[in-house]
Amino acid sequence: MADKIRVTVWNEYRHEKSDPKVAEVYPQGIHGQIAAFLGANDDIVTQTATLDEPEHGLTDEVLANTDVLIWWGHMAHREVKDEIVDKVQERINNGMGLIVLHSGHFSKIFRRMMGTNCSLKWREVGERERVWVVNPGHPIAKGLPESFVVPHCEMYGELFDIPTPDDLLFISWFQGGEVFRSGVAYHRGKGKVFYFAPGHETFPVYYQAEIQQVITNAVRWAAPVCGPYTDLTKAPMVSALEEFTVSE
Amino acid sequence: MADKIRVTVWNEYRHEKSDPKVAEVYPQGIHGQIAAFLGANDDIVTQTATLDEPEHGLTDEVLANTDVLIWWGHMAHREVKDEIVDKVQERINNGMGLIVLHSGHFSKIFRRMMGTNCSLKWREVGERERVWVVNPGHPIAKGLPESFVVPHCEMYGELFDIPTPDDLLFISWFQGGEVFRSGVAYHRGKGKVFYFAPGHETFPVYYQAEIQQVITNAVRWAAPVCGPYTDLTKAPMVSALEEFTVSE
Amino acid sequence: MADKIRVTVWNEYRHEKSDPKVAEVYPQGIHGQIAAFLGANDDIVTQTATLDEPEHGLTDEVLANTDVLIWWGHMAHREVKDEIVDKVQERINNGMGLIVLHSGHFSKIFRRMMGTNCSLKWREVGERERVWVVNPGHPIAKGLPESFVVPHCEMYGELFDIPTPDDLLFISWFQGGEVFRSGVAYHRGKGKVFYFAPGHETFPVYYQAEIQQVITNAVRWAAPVCGPYTDLTKAPMVSALEEFTVSE
Amino acid sequence: MADKIRVTVWNEYRHEKSDPKVAEVYPQGIHGQIAAFLGANDDIVTQTATLDEPEHGLTDEVLANTDVLIWWGHMAHREVKDEIVDKVQERINNGMGLIVLHSGHFSKIFRRMMGTNCSLKWREVGERERVWVVNPGHPIAKGLPESFVVPHCEMYGELFDIPTPDDLLFISWFQGGEVFRSGVAYHRGKGKVFYFAPGHETFPVYYQAEIQQVITNAVRWAAPVCGPYTDLTKAPMVSALEEFTVSE
Repeated sequence: MADKIRVTVWNEYRHEKSDPKVAEVYPQGIHGQIAAFLGANDDIVTQTATLDEPEHGLTDEVLANTDVLIWWGHMAHREVKDEIVDKVQERINNGMGLIVLHSGHFSKIFRRMMGTNCSLKWREVGERERVWVVNPGHPIAKGLPESFVVPHCEMYGELFDIPTPDDLLFISWFQGGEVFRSGVAYHRGKGKVFYFAPGHETFPVYYQAEIQQVITNAVRWAAPVCGPYTDLTKAPMVSALEEFTVSE
Repeated sequence: MADKIRVTVWNEYRHEKSDPKVAEVYPQGIHGQIAAFLGANDDIVTQTATLDEPEHGLTDEVLANTDVLIWWGHMAHREVKDEIVDKVQERINNGMGLIVLHSGHFSKIFRRMMGTNCSLKWREVGERERVWVVNPGHPIAKGLPESFVVPHCEMYGELFDIPTPDDLLFISWFQGGEVFRSGVAYHRGKGKVFYFAPGHETFPVYYQAEIQQVITNAVRWAAPVCGPYTDLTKAPMVSALEEFTVSE
Repeated sequence: MADKIRVTVWNEYRHEKSDPKVAEVYPQGIHGQIAAFLGANDDIVTQTATLDEPEHGLTDEVLANTDVLIWWGHMAHREVKDEIVDKVQERINNGMGLIVLHSGHFSKIFRRMMGTNCSLKWREVGERERVWVVNPGHPIAKGLPESFVVPHCEMYGELFDIPTPDDLLFISWFQGGEVFRSGVAYHRGKGKVFYFAPGHETFPVYYQAEIQQVITNAVRWAAPVCGPYTDLTKAPMVSALEEFTVSE
Repeated sequence: MADKIRVTVWNEYRHEKSDPKVAEVYPQGIHGQIAAFLGANDDIVTQTATLDEPEHGLTDEVLANTDVLIWWGHMAHREVKDEIVDKVQERINNGMGLIVLHSGHFSKIFRRMMGTNCSLKWREVGERERVWVVNPGHPIAKGLPESFVVPHCEMYGELFDIPTPDDLLFISWFQGGEVFRSGVAYHRGKGKVFYFAPGHETFPVYYQAEIQQVITNAVRWAAPVCGPYTDLTKAPMVSALEEFTVSE
């Protein structure tokens, strides 16, 4: 157990309760479906957390025991409390991975980590999306074909207002004439952040094999590395290397 | 006039009033000295703004007429109002350049733009710093030697908790055994951000020719480019490329 | 004159002589058309060079007096002599800009600078290409709209086997279902390299205003910066900083 | 066995035979020492290859069965045959990892992969080197302290003429006043390249625990990912996405 990656799947969990179409596609909630396919892997254990739980389900204990946090939100970004966002940001900085999905581009935590507005163009007509792999040697590309099609998806188009990614994984093509950097990876502090665009509350995207492969790969990539630096929220005064005398 | 780069030099301006040693080095304030050497260039016009002015001197009108904002702060980062930080962030996203100096690494606006904690190691014994140019073809390296020495400087050392820079310009060597990524450049939205570490309130760093050259180069690099996208704070719904019919 | 950017437009110049369709579109050769629109700018002077001239028109004197070299080739990449490629590479490393167009992705000089195979997918049915700007604050994006359409173009598709660009400027959408990183910028040594995909020998792409704007912007961006380091082909032995005694 | 990472350690293997001081430090050759500490890991199997073997020990069969190639060379870079370099480059492009050590910065294969001259400054007085970790969440930083000292090392100093790394791992400080990007990582094609500077033929650097940790981490990072794209040396003509008719 000790070596398994501990994933917490966070979901706003409002659409599923208010919209029968969403409930039909995701009867256990989007978080339930994501936790289910991730949990089927031997090296991953999952739990879930949702907006309307106390502290949005993200207590200090939950965060301390999370290696990778997955984030799905859409209509209630503003209801997420700033003090929870502060704590999540500090955990990422100290090593936790964050995977943000689809409409989570406008979540407080993603905008906080990026420093930009994270805006984009969009169109919701169920058009075809084709996802191209552009960094084939990256661990998040493992097991994928050169490209794959999501038959019906919400269009997300450029300009996607994000910082230059450390690694650009996927570029999506949309039927109506747009492109989108749909898989982008970042190092932030001791942690890592991955944003993946495909996914929607009324299309069964999270049942598609390639989508599940990407998110599973991303969990493994984003898991903390046991490296140096104990607390990145400190700015310590330090002494000079012993062997030298520096002028005072 | 119309084509000149309009620079606003912002300074916390507290040290100069409370510490005679600082006042002696910078009798017109650090902002006064920076505005003076920048303003000596034909293509640059300067104004200044300080913390204790109404709206910290950064009114809507001032921001609308600023191409590049230079930021110096140290002891009073917390006194900068969040609503001013919000406005500055939005202006950067829409094209304004930001140049952050030395202890400004812990300013609200820099941390906001970076998304990380921006912590570092430090030591204040007036030791020697040697700044090495590591991107010699970049416009911010124009006119510089391979390396230059700042005779007495506060040490800032790694780990500098910042995102991977788009362009790494300078790496500093310190007498006591540390290194520091002392010049880092970022694209953010339509704007640009440059952080430059050398500089201190009691050392005459901003009188040094190479330091002035770097800041002047950075102003020219960070000046807005008249490119596409009118307002990056919007996420517009768009129609498909006319020539195509997409399934609805 | 001294301050103008000196551009040499190199063209294989075979298609124009062997294929009447190409000659009709580019009666002065592709190099002639590119030199014409660039030369209309006050800050740029142009000359041309072609494969069948002695030393491919790239004598030591021509290279020494070239700030930015533009490269167009297609069917005769193998005929370019390795010793000329060596000299061009050394000039780039010491500051000259290189702009590679369209089928030049498979030129010896581009593959040499990239270190990868530079392969891609392609299809030649005259389909529609839509070019999206994804780095709107970059000087190469100056004056462009959010996207523009090339009505008929050869498709170039991912995977484009290139190193991660320092700056990704453009992503192209193609009618048939592909995407392409169609504008990519690199620092190499003291010089800069820009690759721009749109352009073809039988489509009048180099007469289109946006295409001309991009290439003109790229020339200004790629012009040498007068920075440090005299000769990057040397690996000099150096002494320690005077102030220190290091153990021998 | 099938899942183990197959490492081939290549060594020029000349110094050890000509210089008794080198033979004393590395009686089995530098390749022998590196293969020994790597082979002590359960997930790694090693073999070695040297310059004076037929085909430099890098036959088609050896390359086909190598997941990660480690390269050490110094005085005989020119004796490496170009056709072997061609084959190694093609293997990297198709997924093999390459780890280049110390004076290998001037090897044909590293310069080929980088596209730049790979020159640097150097000084050989056995001074102290301090290696700082600047990307603490990267798998190559696993298990390392914030910094570590190599007591006696050859100085390698900036400007290191390399492309902007995809990931900058380490920056070294040298006693005499220089800094160096001593750990840099790149994606190239489907493969990965890591350069690590510390290491020398007469200092026992490859016996130091932190150095062994870095190289072991790098092997795991550079091992091939089983991702898409079968052969990156091809530029295939492709058909349009079935669902669309594109103008011909």
